[in-house]
Amino acid sequence: MQTMASDVSETAASQAANAPAAPVQGVLLGDPEIMATYVDAFAKHAPHIRLAFPEAIEDPASVTFALAWDPDDTAFTPFPNLRLISSIAAGVNGILASASLPADVPLMRIAGTAQGQMMAGFVTWHVLWHHRRFGDYLANQRRTHWERRPKRDARDVRVGLLGAGKMGGAVAQALLALGYDVGVYSRSGRNLPDGAEGFHGEEGLSQLAARSEILITLLPLTPETRGILNADLFARMPSGAALIHVGRGEHLIEADLLAALDSGQLSGASLDVFAVEPLPSTHAFWTHDKIVVTPHDACDSTPAQVAQEAATALAGLDVGERPASLVDRDAGY
Amino acid sequence: MQTMASDVSETAASQAANAPAAPVQGVLLGDPEIMATYVDAFAKHAPHIRLAFPEAIEDPASVTFALAWDPDDTAFTPFPNLRLISSIAAGVNGILASASLPADVPLMRIAGTAQGQMMAGFVTWHVLWHHRRFGDYLANQRRTHWERRPKRDARDVRVGLLGAGKMGGAVAQALLALGYDVGVYSRSGRNLPDGAEGFHGEEGLSQLAARSEILITLLPLTPETRGILNADLFARMPSGAALIHVGRGEHLIEADLLAALDSGQLSGASLDVFAVEPLPSTHAFWTHDKIVVTPHDACDSTPAQVAQEAATALAGLDVGERPASLVDRDAGY
Repeated sequence: MQTMASDVSETAASQAANAPAAPVQGVLLGDPEIMATYVDAFAKHAPHIRLAFPEAIEDPASVTFALAWDPDDTAFTPFPNLRLISSIAAGVNGILASASLPADVPLMRIAGTAQGQMMAGFVTWHVLWHHRRFGDYLANQRRTHWERRPKRDARDVRVGLLGAGKMGGAVAQALLALGYDVGVYSRSGRNLPDGAEGFHGEEGLSQLAARSEILITLLPLTPETRGILNADLFARMPSGAALIHVGRGEHLIEADLLAALDSGQLSGASLDVFAVEPLPSTHAFWTHDKIVVTPHDACDSTPAQVAQEAATALAGLDVGERPASLVDRDAGY
Repeated sequence: MQTMASDVSETAASQAANAPAAPVQGVLLGDPEIMATYVDAFAKHAPHIRLAFPEAIEDPASVTFALAWDPDDTAFTPFPNLRLISSIAAGVNGILASASLPADVPLMRIAGTAQGQMMAGFVTWHVLWHHRRFGDYLANQRRTHWERRPKRDARDVRVGLLGAGKMGGAVAQALLALGYDVGVYSRSGRNLPDGAEGFHGEEGLSQLAARSEILITLLPLTPETRGILNADLFARMPSGAALIHVGRGEHLIEADLLAALDSGQLSGASLDVFAVEPLPSTHAFWTHDKIVVTPHDACDSTPAQVAQEAATALAGLDVGERPASLVDRDAGY
């Protein structure tokens, strides 16, 4: 489950990006409300890339760049001369699902250091929420109750990460700095952060689950990972373990999570992603006292970051360099 | 404001601690309820050190070790042959305040890596609470409200640490791993963690306050630091800044904090330490909607850790080594 571990750094591409660049016509494919937020950022940070919605483009053959998020099935059809397609975030499953996605155009995603650290902060907050039971502190304050508690060293708390990509690496680094005992599962076993214990393969997944008092999902959504958070996995975890889910909604079998929480097999869950978003107001997750719901808000690429990374990648193509965060379409991320 | 940055490591002292050791008679000085929790831990982890309360000791001249926490003014008087006095935690101001504290006996405190990381986790949780406004997420969940929000990169968030000791170093390391822009104030300017910006002296304190959207107090309590968190300091901070106070209650002028919160100069405060503990149930802090109260619970040395560090220090004395966490009585920590 590893991703490309490269970053925007001092490469030929970034140097080329700093040189005056030839104009590029780009198209915005996806929900107009979401995509509109990128127009200003590109104007400021990559002014040579002109972005427009499809209906405003007179000559589709002039379009060489597409910025996309959940494009519809025919979105790419009018544009025969694309040189690069970029997601606005780390996820690309919505783009890969478009029937008109051209097979031979490089597809990149946004996965920079800043985004990894934003994810790491979000996840670290939830790890501490479960480990140190901060919810109890807040509840005690509401009833004016002073109660000190025995504490466990972080080194005695086993945290498991599903996913060893850019984000997984940033999360592991933050948790290791706090002394946690960190295990990392990835499909290949590569990209193991220093100081973490590695697991891979089907047996590795079971072993990681069995050791994880706090399990974090940071996997991409692929056919193999769909439904990976299920009753079988929860049963392998230590009794009273907690789940922090920041992958994709489709990783989770929702009924299995509710059953595991209600039986006490799991003590709590932090959920940031859902099969249906926004999470419907009648959904049981909202009011469950062992669940913290956040609105798919763990981390964002900023529009400025998207503009800079797209400009760098386009400049790189001019000098024959692959985008740093090129998607492996076979792997699905 | 630096502390001794040494740790329990592979020194002659720790090797000596692993050898069979001669029996040591120790005495417990302080609140019996607190001190009693160390008897079992020493029996298990340092069985050659026999701990007893003063009234159970037949021959006070046989006592060579004292484990103390807020001992009374005459507590040390009956014991003329002490070789080592240890606190049960990082704080020693209660011991230094005892009139009978012998001037010539080494005094140590407990400040290990595990404790630093426990503090770092606690503080990191609160930094994220303020930076990412997690309180709003929890409130939104209570009203079934899905609301994504613009986010700021951690590198744009300036965090200031007052105190560059063992704990400050662990906190800085955790925050730097998450990408925060970290400034550290210490009296001497020494012990600056890699990647942090250093400040020292009176002017440095003002400069650090002026740059800190989130200010963390990790100072020891000394005559110089008493009341350091006051209206003047709050006024120098950026408007809307937050305070995380994990030092000592006496650092804070409570009325000044309430005024700064009520005027909006500060947006929030996380308070773990108080001038009077437990915090009286009628105190305004409990119910203030911008304050998170925790019960002086940021971190503990575990009794096992105290036993191990005391045994190591005693063994070190036998081979002429100073305790790793020797207190500098002039500095007061």
